[in-house]
Amino acid sequence: MNIIDSARQGIVTPLIRAIAGDEGVKPGMLLSDIASGVTVIPRNKYRTLKKPCGIGRGLRTKVNVNLGTSPDCSDVKTELKKLNVAVSGGADAVMDLSTGPEVRVTRRFLIARCPIPFGTVPIYEAVVKRHNRLEDVTADDIIDVLKDHAEDGVDFVTLHVGVTRNIARMLERSKRLIAMVSRGGALLYKWMKIHRQENPLFARFDEVLDLAKEYDLTISLGDGMRPGALKDANDRPQFGELELLGKLQKQALKKGIQTIIEGPGHVPLDKIRDNVIRQKKLCHGAPFYVLGPLVADIAPGYDHITGAIGGALAASYGADFLCYVTPAEHLRLPSIDDVKEGLMASKIAAHAADIAKGNKSAWARDIQISKARAARDWEKQFTYALDPEKARLYRKSLKTSHRDVCSMCSDYCPLKITEDVHA
Amino acid sequence: MNIIDSARQGIVTPLIRAIAGDEGVKPGMLLSDIASGVTVIPRNKYRTLKKPCGIGRGLRTKVNVNLGTSPDCSDVKTELKKLNVAVSGGADAVMDLSTGPEVRVTRRFLIARCPIPFGTVPIYEAVVKRHNRLEDVTADDIIDVLKDHAEDGVDFVTLHVGVTRNIARMLERSKRLIAMVSRGGALLYKWMKIHRQENPLFARFDEVLDLAKEYDLTISLGDGMRPGALKDANDRPQFGELELLGKLQKQALKKGIQTIIEGPGHVPLDKIRDNVIRQKKLCHGAPFYVLGPLVADIAPGYDHITGAIGGALAASYGADFLCYVTPAEHLRLPSIDDVKEGLMASKIAAHAADIAKGNKSAWARDIQISKARAARDWEKQFTYALDPEKARLYRKSLKTSHRDVCSMCSDYCPLKITEDVHA
Repeated sequence: MNIIDSARQGIVTPLIRAIAGDEGVKPGMLLSDIASGVTVIPRNKYRTLKKPCGIGRGLRTKVNVNLGTSPDCSDVKTELKKLNVAVSGGADAVMDLSTGPEVRVTRRFLIARCPIPFGTVPIYEAVVKRHNRLEDVTADDIIDVLKDHAEDGVDFVTLHVGVTRNIARMLERSKRLIAMVSRGGALLYKWMKIHRQENPLFARFDEVLDLAKEYDLTISLGDGMRPGALKDANDRPQFGELELLGKLQKQALKKGIQTIIEGPGHVPLDKIRDNVIRQKKLCHGAPFYVLGPLVADIAPGYDHITGAIGGALAASYGADFLCYVTPAEHLRLPSIDDVKEGLMASKIAAHAADIAKGNKSAWARDIQISKARAARDWEKQFTYALDPEKARLYRKSLKTSHRDVCSMCSDYCPLKITEDVHA
Repeated sequence: MNIIDSARQGIVTPLIRAIAGDEGVKPGMLLSDIASGVTVIPRNKYRTLKKPCGIGRGLRTKVNVNLGTSPDCSDVKTELKKLNVAVSGGADAVMDLSTGPEVRVTRRFLIARCPIPFGTVPIYEAVVKRHNRLEDVTADDIIDVLKDHAEDGVDFVTLHVGVTRNIARMLERSKRLIAMVSRGGALLYKWMKIHRQENPLFARFDEVLDLAKEYDLTISLGDGMRPGALKDANDRPQFGELELLGKLQKQALKKGIQTIIEGPGHVPLDKIRDNVIRQKKLCHGAPFYVLGPLVADIAPGYDHITGAIGGALAASYGADFLCYVTPAEHLRLPSIDDVKEGLMASKIAAHAADIAKGNKSAWARDIQISKARAARDWEKQFTYALDPEKARLYRKSLKTSHRDVCSMCSDYCPLKITEDVHA
């Protein structure tokens, strides 16, 4: 039985019990949140998923890592290493965004080795298969490729259903600095122009939903109109599309399809709250999956940091799922190191938001590391550290004359000087 | 004449004109803000300061870089390299926190080569001079060393005047996970215990102010009680000290001394706003100088990121001056690379906040880089990038087959696909 259907019947499956236990929530709450669409558990009916997770209300903020080949860089072994770094670094989900040759071979290779939810953007493969000749891509191609992904066991798919003729007109009438930065959205927009047709994912949304139902595929409604410049944030195309996504989410939910809503993008710090509140309202509380948001345009090389600032803020206001951003964003396909750095930055953002929301397991860890810090118990600090290996390396790299302090303050360690305050 | 005195007389000096021009504010506004203590221009009367800056209301958020030796690592040439990295990376001020041998020699060497405001924490030297034997440090030592710093041309000094017997009692009664993490605060606390005396900086505050007046030294009132763990944030010792700092600020302002208030520290995301609003209220709008704040305890090795998240948020609510945090925080004395990484993270936080506050020059730069991005004009993007060198290296490191795109999307570049939307 599909997850929503089973939740609506109030069945506490082993999956529900495991996730509720891990998150410290009641199974009954989880069931009713899945039934009403405010929480999802992305999982293809035909895949054995080792480490599933819940995304939504009252759960820890989750982090996604993007990987995948591009025409310029298509070594599947490198992508496997990225996958392994993502999993061991604590990513909750990955998306394979491959656009290099052999998209399906790459996907099957990676998914077989992936213990966590696996997502894709099927439109890429529809276009890659026709060698980027959009004039040769048919509406059937766009629908058919979705079936291939579902058959391969993909757990969640980004579908830019909201890039419609109507929303495209809003875009054309806008004064954006950068028209579109969504790759899937841009491909569909261009396809619509060339073929003078409506977006097939929208025109044939019922077919899409039937397919999703068959495989219990979670749909992530893509934000083709997400702003790529701070100046373009919260404009008519962006919010027009978001409103439409809310209607599509309602339709999907009615059919028992788990649905996530994707969000921006480049957004000034003070406009993030509006994005989250609006999404929750227009999309009936559905999980919000944000890319960043990036709070500055000027920091190529450091966009894991601009993204962590925005992500922490968005998640503290209620965004449920953070798509990581790497230091390579805007510059190149990320390297293995970039994946690690991007993931750590996003994990920090998610954790900071969970702390702000009072999540008990997040707080427990900070309390433990702080106690170890007060005691100057270095090994224990590393145990609770986000990245024990890096912390250990830093400490080792500069010797101190006293084993219980660090080389910053050495003899003048404030923790040591005041250790008897509460003694 | 001292800066506040001259501002109170409404004199538009060349310094005032230059800073007002650079910030795009009216000289009259700057004068009245200096007169009322909501803005400061740290500058020792006897120093020729090449690049002064204003810190306070309506001005861009400023960033400070800490450097200096420690007993474990005391190479002055390395510290000079850090200073140069700070200045060329766009730091607005530096603080020399040296505690290695030859504190004064180091200070004089660095200050002579420093074009931006130079700050110190004089208590360190008072203690280092007595080889960390606090029992040998006299109250006169603590006052006298301040004069040495002023004579050497230091522009602003951190003085932990708020670590009083009364506040220490609040600390002792508290249930903090980590009693104190302020080095200067801890030294004074311990000194008070050993000598059974009140903090000399507090007991002899009038003398301190007279000295500050003589050199037009800006006083940065240190937060000895800043929390070192999220759990300890916004507690009685912290806010008790803040309240006292507000009273001290009023006293200093009356005497025409420019004053800054220092703030935390480790603070959960959702408690940052309260810190800023409260500081502004209790301290009569005086500039707020925060260390981070760090929004997670668990990320040693990545605390430039936890600090950038908190810093961006704090500055967007009104904090004026961010003290950078490096990836080495909690682990070792920062290396030259750590200084660079920490500075960039803080600059991003400051910029993101300036964007949120509608600062025109901040917005202009983001608009320029976004236009260059839309045009796929790589050289122009680098011109407006925070760190052109790093951005260039990233792009170069992975070749793409087409000169106008990057290796992430290559043929599938959304900017290229949709370049005719507004054509």
